[in-house]
Amino acid sequence: MKTLDVVTFGETMVLFTSEAMTPLEYSSHFSKQIGGAESNVAIGLQRLGHSVGWFSKLGNDPFGRYIHKFVRGEGVDTSRCIYTDEAPTGIFFKEKRSPSNIKVYYYRRNSAASLLSPDDLDEEYIANAKFLHITGITPALSTSCRETVFKAIEIAKRHRVKIVFDPNIRLKLWTIEKARQVLMEIAAEADIILPGLDEGELLSGRNTPEDIARFFGEEKLVIIKLGERGAYYQFGSEEGYVKGFAVPQIVDPVGAGDGFAAGVISGLLQNVPISEAVRRGNAVGAIVVGTNGDVEGLPTREELDEFLQGAAYQRDVKR
Amino acid sequence: MKTLDVVTFGETMVLFTSEAMTPLEYSSHFSKQIGGAESNVAIGLQRLGHSVGWFSKLGNDPFGRYIHKFVRGEGVDTSRCIYTDEAPTGIFFKEKRSPSNIKVYYYRRNSAASLLSPDDLDEEYIANAKFLHITGITPALSTSCRETVFKAIEIAKRHRVKIVFDPNIRLKLWTIEKARQVLMEIAAEADIILPGLDEGELLSGRNTPEDIARFFGEEKLVIIKLGERGAYYQFGSEEGYVKGFAVPQIVDPVGAGDGFAAGVISGLLQNVPISEAVRRGNAVGAIVVGTNGDVEGLPTREELDEFLQGAAYQRDVKR
Amino acid sequence: MKTLDVVTFGETMVLFTSEAMTPLEYSSHFSKQIGGAESNVAIGLQRLGHSVGWFSKLGNDPFGRYIHKFVRGEGVDTSRCIYTDEAPTGIFFKEKRSPSNIKVYYYRRNSAASLLSPDDLDEEYIANAKFLHITGITPALSTSCRETVFKAIEIAKRHRVKIVFDPNIRLKLWTIEKARQVLMEIAAEADIILPGLDEGELLSGRNTPEDIARFFGEEKLVIIKLGERGAYYQFGSEEGYVKGFAVPQIVDPVGAGDGFAAGVISGLLQNVPISEAVRRGNAVGAIVVGTNGDVEGLPTREELDEFLQGAAYQRDVKR
Amino acid sequence: MKTLDVVTFGETMVLFTSEAMTPLEYSSHFSKQIGGAESNVAIGLQRLGHSVGWFSKLGNDPFGRYIHKFVRGEGVDTSRCIYTDEAPTGIFFKEKRSPSNIKVYYYRRNSAASLLSPDDLDEEYIANAKFLHITGITPALSTSCRETVFKAIEIAKRHRVKIVFDPNIRLKLWTIEKARQVLMEIAAEADIILPGLDEGELLSGRNTPEDIARFFGEEKLVIIKLGERGAYYQFGSEEGYVKGFAVPQIVDPVGAGDGFAAGVISGLLQNVPISEAVRRGNAVGAIVVGTNGDVEGLPTREELDEFLQGAAYQRDVKR
Amino acid sequence: MKTLDVVTFGETMVLFTSEAMTPLEYSSHFSKQIGGAESNVAIGLQRLGHSVGWFSKLGNDPFGRYIHKFVRGEGVDTSRCIYTDEAPTGIFFKEKRSPSNIKVYYYRRNSAASLLSPDDLDEEYIANAKFLHITGITPALSTSCRETVFKAIEIAKRHRVKIVFDPNIRLKLWTIEKARQVLMEIAAEADIILPGLDEGELLSGRNTPEDIARFFGEEKLVIIKLGERGAYYQFGSEEGYVKGFAVPQIVDPVGAGDGFAAGVISGLLQNVPISEAVRRGNAVGAIVVGTNGDVEGLPTREELDEFLQGAAYQRDVKR
Amino acid sequence: MKTLDVVTFGETMVLFTSEAMTPLEYSSHFSKQIGGAESNVAIGLQRLGHSVGWFSKLGNDPFGRYIHKFVRGEGVDTSRCIYTDEAPTGIFFKEKRSPSNIKVYYYRRNSAASLLSPDDLDEEYIANAKFLHITGITPALSTSCRETVFKAIEIAKRHRVKIVFDPNIRLKLWTIEKARQVLMEIAAEADIILPGLDEGELLSGRNTPEDIARFFGEEKLVIIKLGERGAYYQFGSEEGYVKGFAVPQIVDPVGAGDGFAAGVISGLLQNVPISEAVRRGNAVGAIVVGTNGDVEGLPTREELDEFLQGAAYQRDVKR
Repeated sequence: MKTLDVVTFGETMVLFTSEAMTPLEYSSHFSKQIGGAESNVAIGLQRLGHSVGWFSKLGNDPFGRYIHKFVRGEGVDTSRCIYTDEAPTGIFFKEKRSPSNIKVYYYRRNSAASLLSPDDLDEEYIANAKFLHITGITPALSTSCRETVFKAIEIAKRHRVKIVFDPNIRLKLWTIEKARQVLMEIAAEADIILPGLDEGELLSGRNTPEDIARFFGEEKLVIIKLGERGAYYQFGSEEGYVKGFAVPQIVDPVGAGDGFAAGVISGLLQNVPISEAVRRGNAVGAIVVGTNGDVEGLPTREELDEFLQGAAYQRDVKR
Repeated sequence: MKTLDVVTFGETMVLFTSEAMTPLEYSSHFSKQIGGAESNVAIGLQRLGHSVGWFSKLGNDPFGRYIHKFVRGEGVDTSRCIYTDEAPTGIFFKEKRSPSNIKVYYYRRNSAASLLSPDDLDEEYIANAKFLHITGITPALSTSCRETVFKAIEIAKRHRVKIVFDPNIRLKLWTIEKARQVLMEIAAEADIILPGLDEGELLSGRNTPEDIARFFGEEKLVIIKLGERGAYYQFGSEEGYVKGFAVPQIVDPVGAGDGFAAGVISGLLQNVPISEAVRRGNAVGAIVVGTNGDVEGLPTREELDEFLQGAAYQRDVKR
Repeated sequence: MKTLDVVTFGETMVLFTSEAMTPLEYSSHFSKQIGGAESNVAIGLQRLGHSVGWFSKLGNDPFGRYIHKFVRGEGVDTSRCIYTDEAPTGIFFKEKRSPSNIKVYYYRRNSAASLLSPDDLDEEYIANAKFLHITGITPALSTSCRETVFKAIEIAKRHRVKIVFDPNIRLKLWTIEKARQVLMEIAAEADIILPGLDEGELLSGRNTPEDIARFFGEEKLVIIKLGERGAYYQFGSEEGYVKGFAVPQIVDPVGAGDGFAAGVISGLLQNVPISEAVRRGNAVGAIVVGTNGDVEGLPTREELDEFLQGAAYQRDVKR
Repeated sequence: MKTLDVVTFGETMVLFTSEAMTPLEYSSHFSKQIGGAESNVAIGLQRLGHSVGWFSKLGNDPFGRYIHKFVRGEGVDTSRCIYTDEAPTGIFFKEKRSPSNIKVYYYRRNSAASLLSPDDLDEEYIANAKFLHITGITPALSTSCRETVFKAIEIAKRHRVKIVFDPNIRLKLWTIEKARQVLMEIAAEADIILPGLDEGELLSGRNTPEDIARFFGEEKLVIIKLGERGAYYQFGSEEGYVKGFAVPQIVDPVGAGDGFAAGVISGLLQNVPISEAVRRGNAVGAIVVGTNGDVEGLPTREELDEFLQGAAYQRDVKR
Repeated sequence: MKTLDVVTFGETMVLFTSEAMTPLEYSSHFSKQIGGAESNVAIGLQRLGHSVGWFSKLGNDPFGRYIHKFVRGEGVDTSRCIYTDEAPTGIFFKEKRSPSNIKVYYYRRNSAASLLSPDDLDEEYIANAKFLHITGITPALSTSCRETVFKAIEIAKRHRVKIVFDPNIRLKLWTIEKARQVLMEIAAEADIILPGLDEGELLSGRNTPEDIARFFGEEKLVIIKLGERGAYYQFGSEEGYVKGFAVPQIVDPVGAGDGFAAGVISGLLQNVPISEAVRRGNAVGAIVVGTNGDVEGLPTREELDEFLQGAAYQRDVKR
Repeated sequence: MKTLDVVTFGETMVLFTSEAMTPLEYSSHFSKQIGGAESNVAIGLQRLGHSVGWFSKLGNDPFGRYIHKFVRGEGVDTSRCIYTDEAPTGIFFKEKRSPSNIKVYYYRRNSAASLLSPDDLDEEYIANAKFLHITGITPALSTSCRETVFKAIEIAKRHRVKIVFDPNIRLKLWTIEKARQVLMEIAAEADIILPGLDEGELLSGRNTPEDIARFFGEEKLVIIKLGERGAYYQFGSEEGYVKGFAVPQIVDPVGAGDGFAAGVISGLLQNVPISEAVRRGNAVGAIVVGTNGDVEGLPTREELDEFLQGAAYQRDVKR
């Protein structure tokens, strides 16, 4: 069996975006894309040159096939995707009145992905990976999804696969109380935790990056995303702030966190110093928000290197 | 309370159609319309000059508001529509590879409309109508929807409101056995029944229009739709075939049956002879299939009269 | 006869906007919307929970029907709309090179609405309203429109219906001299006057909000719109400035004045203090400019309350 | 002064077509083209290698400039086009429910072109042409347009410029009685007359091509268009039927008559036998209906020759 | 190394199609797809459940990446694709005036794919396949492409991989004389040859399917495509006609031949009788022309079985 | 022969722009425009009221005809355009992730325009002009193009036609070394040179506007474009800075330099003082960047005058 650098799983949905920036009620035309935190991270890592596997349970319908083909087209291993006739592929609609006024409407209740269950896991597949990437969205989808997450963690633990955990709190899916309880259980098992500052506050009840990081435990690598300001990391006695990159124009903020995760994991896979891995996360996040779409802007290795050398935004339109 | 000619209720969904005639999997752009048999009939009757009320349970979301505004804009009374926060408005996608190769994909399970329940009925509203229009879709949506249909029938019976029943069998929603049982129960209460020939066969197990009609009972007006050939009617000893209209170009077959129902009911409301009401049904159906969309082509009274006088397709492009 | 909170009337046109931000000459695709100051106000008030009637004379053509259905769909009473075969529905084109460089091209000369005449008024309809809303556009359309405005005012006066007047000076329709003469005649009859600062200057020849307000007369409530700075009001000895709301991103400035009027009238209908009504006007205006389109962004009561409680722009994209 | 083969003039309007085949009322997107019988003929002739001048009075607005640039871009001499600030450029909307169910809605009353007046004519420009092409649309637009037509005819007569007249009856613009009177006056002055069969019937009251042709007078070349069947011509004792070309698929019937005129005039300019000129007319008409748009499908000389040699529809998709 | 059922290679280009059916000159909007005979066959086979490898030389540009991701997304093995900085990815434009009047415009001269050379071949990759699929397009692209084809044939021969050859004559790329010489050289090495009737005539100078087949040699399986009539096959003394399937509506004729090849090869891979393999070819071809696009309509195994059981076009729109 | 104010020549290509701001790889829809520095200048001058001739060698294909018709439609003399069957019209694609992140992808190698050769020049045509406008793009296209440029210069010199030279360095087409050598040869012959500051630096190796200008020679008028800061000019002892205009919103930066050239040449043609000509160049450049597209925003004489009088951005949306 082929060894993969990273394995991740979770629900990717078809996303319908209004072509005009008007309320959905008045929008007449929509375009189709995909959206999913875990597949974003998988594609991001693949583009940086790593081998990645992603899987989900997909509806046996055109939307399930579309998601499958899109992710596979990007070079991600999708051999563990499962199709079901029991439920349709989840979809959602995005309403964007302005870049800072966005709402989403889900049709994901009882979706195919919510039927993911522990039996769908291929132990060997996970066991052969270097990292297992888990988000806090999956356990919010259904009881069987939650059980699947915990079984995957158990497999990873047994085979010494490192666990990266991105809380990704979605209060449309569960209450903060329920979320806190489950996510802290997962965090307890994780090796690396990547909360946003507000997520860290919600989970820990503390306010500063330092305090939040300490709350998760010193034996873990905790990296707290601070938006344009960059990120703070703490691992045992090692700690520090890594400044973010100035973004000349934020085109689309969605997907920045997933890009950050891809950058950080890429650094860890290559054993660069933590601060350097975080800097890479900052860079990927900064590049992603400069392009429309969740995955379209994820940089290749060359684009990332060019960006880190400061070349990207000095290049002239000399044609 | 205002008296209405016809009251009807049932699920209207937002319909997303691919702009290109390709499989949904490869379609990148979709446009938004509405689709619903009962609201089609309501709009058709309104356009012919009758007063109509339609209601449903709508999600408290942009799609629910869109449906509400669209139907109200057409002049239909929507004052009994109910909004719920419990479930989203149902939606569906249409895949059209060619005009004769169409598939639909529903996101209507547990939709807002499926929560309709007997308590949502306003007895006085139905009691004041001349006709109650019922389709076989509603009882297939949920138990509470089924109960709502039977309670509405009971109200109509109590107040001598005539019941028009269009079976509209949807085998994606229930099995033929279950459908047959429930629909025959409804048919037993109906005054007017409007099956298509294949529906009549499925329900009665008989083959000819005459036999099928007799199966439903002689005291009822049974009108069997025969597609381009027209329709057959039977009411007691009165019976006959009414030839259909030649359609120069079938642009979109969807909505023909609903247009037929609107035409027939319009005739009955004006007490024209049955054969004339059927002819009106044939005419509206023929006009509808010559225009894209379910409701866009429903004719006004003037357009119908013009068509019946044979003028419509002789009109030259003399500009 | 049903009692309405507000009655208004005037020309609503079909608006064609270029889909690309290029000069019209080079634009190849256009989308269809509606545009009309009075129907904007009507829809704004309806959405805030008030009952409103709007009417116009519409061409008996697809564009007239589109306008009628759109406004009726929003829940506004359109029972007094009149169709005519004498003239087509007015239309206009919008050229938008950039958000700050907009031009319009009218096809409204001799339009259906310009044929509105005093005989089209239903005295009882106006008599039963609490407010009559008049803009300075209608009297500029034609002699018969001007007469209709004055007859409506007369009816309102006779039945003690309060008159709200928004000058809406359109120098494409008449000269400033003619405009000043007629609009001052109307202002003389109005109870509430809502000019922009530049309009106030044009009409009064004075420069400060205070002087302009005084010019219209102390017995009237004069509210002068100051754009992002907010508004100034004066009513007898009562007067003051009400600060505007900061708008994070102005998406589309058109319709702000109509939203302001809707907010103010809503406050007056609920007898809140004048300063509070003005604040409501500021709020609706600020919300409207954050959404594309004239009416699409008009807030519901809930959205307005949320905005006034400062919640709107703090809500996170927690999905 | 440059000598032109043909001079023509008349109103060309901007045409807005719904992108979807739905009633205009429900169409949300429109695309911009141009439409005008005389400019169609001018472009058709230019493409066949002749030198042509076309002019009109255009509004000094983006739509006027668009028309001007489009026709000039095709290589037609537009040096006599006049801009006016008095009126806007005429526009119209096309509703296409199916290829055989088309309606148009005009905004051309009091348009810029309707202000064309005898003073706008450049005598020398017409005098130097070989043919003056006149349609029956122009005299229907306004009194001054009618006078312009008669003055142009007078100039042509004085300078022995041959007059080609295409009746193009538009009953939306005037009554049949008025049309008949004016068009027969023009016909009396024309050298070549190109009515459709139905137009011939309306003008002459006769039924057969032979009788209709005789009605116009034996000293004239009368060519009667018979649609797919071809055309009949009569000139003194010379007469005959010329069979039309089979069209594999009629994509858009509009513009066929103008293409026919271009083909015929092209033949006459090259002094081919009448029957051959008519055959050329049939060919251009047949080619035009195989392409969308009024002018887009007008063939070049090479395309026409290829078609006449029967090659066009045998060409394989050998790529 | 993984064993594949079929290996094929050749140029796939990005295809830009005009969104309106007008001449390219007047088309303003284009949509992006891919086009390539070999990748069509590869995707067709993959969808029928076989394992397939396809490769080409791609430009190191967005269009090269798009092609790569599309084909990989379909599940085809693309591991042997090569990127080059030497030349851009080939593209072409399709002009469609009507379904029967199509022209293409190439930008493929000196494209990346034309740089394919014998050194790009991976002997083991081909050696492990059961079939090598070759078209007559590749040798027409460049000298190095021609050499690559012959080297691939040599490898296949050495490893007893069966060679399927589809002549795909493209007279835009070379003269008939040159084509005939090279294609006959390839045919001489092929085990299975799949010409269209006209191609067979061009290559052999003979007229009947029987004679043409005999011309290629009795030891080969020759299958001659006869369009809607079906196909004729000959293999030694075995021969026969296999009737085509009636197609209710030809939506897009392009890709039929590639679908035919996929169907035939699929049958051969499963060792069905030749006539059955040909019938499968006919079926896939018939399905493909009922859907827009080259690959969009290629059926899955289930869709093919359903079609062969006659179910596909009897399925009702029972929703 | 008609005398023209300015003659210019060079490659104009068809430009395909993605309709969405996503990487080309993910863009599905493209719109067609034209792009070419010399035709931009020609159209800019024509719009300012001068007579201009532009020519190129165009492919005998739809894209060549489109370019020809577009430029001719603008009123530019295109009588010297030449069609060739030897090569296709050049095209290019624009990827715009954000207004400040633009890349282009060319299909212009061996294009029709690259075949321009000295024999294509009409000596009399150039001889009769007042100015010959040359850019540094043409000599980069091919050897024959380079020779054409030098022959044109020779003709101009012989007939005392002034030469305006805009370096327009395109490092995608040649190396900086080669560019420097050839462009300096051209500069040596030019009367007016219009480099951007960075271009001046590349060519001269100097840093300040003053030094760069002096490098080109005192007998020439050198104008150095400084972006938003304006421009510096030097002519003998005359020199100075001319401040640029504040641009409220940069919509599209492309085409600013060409607009600048048009403005400057217009001033020189009218013999205004140099500083005034430069100011005109600044103004046209500032107007152009406020509109999408290369030529769409080029101002007419009236628009330019209005802008120079400061009126443009004070005009209110008083409709």
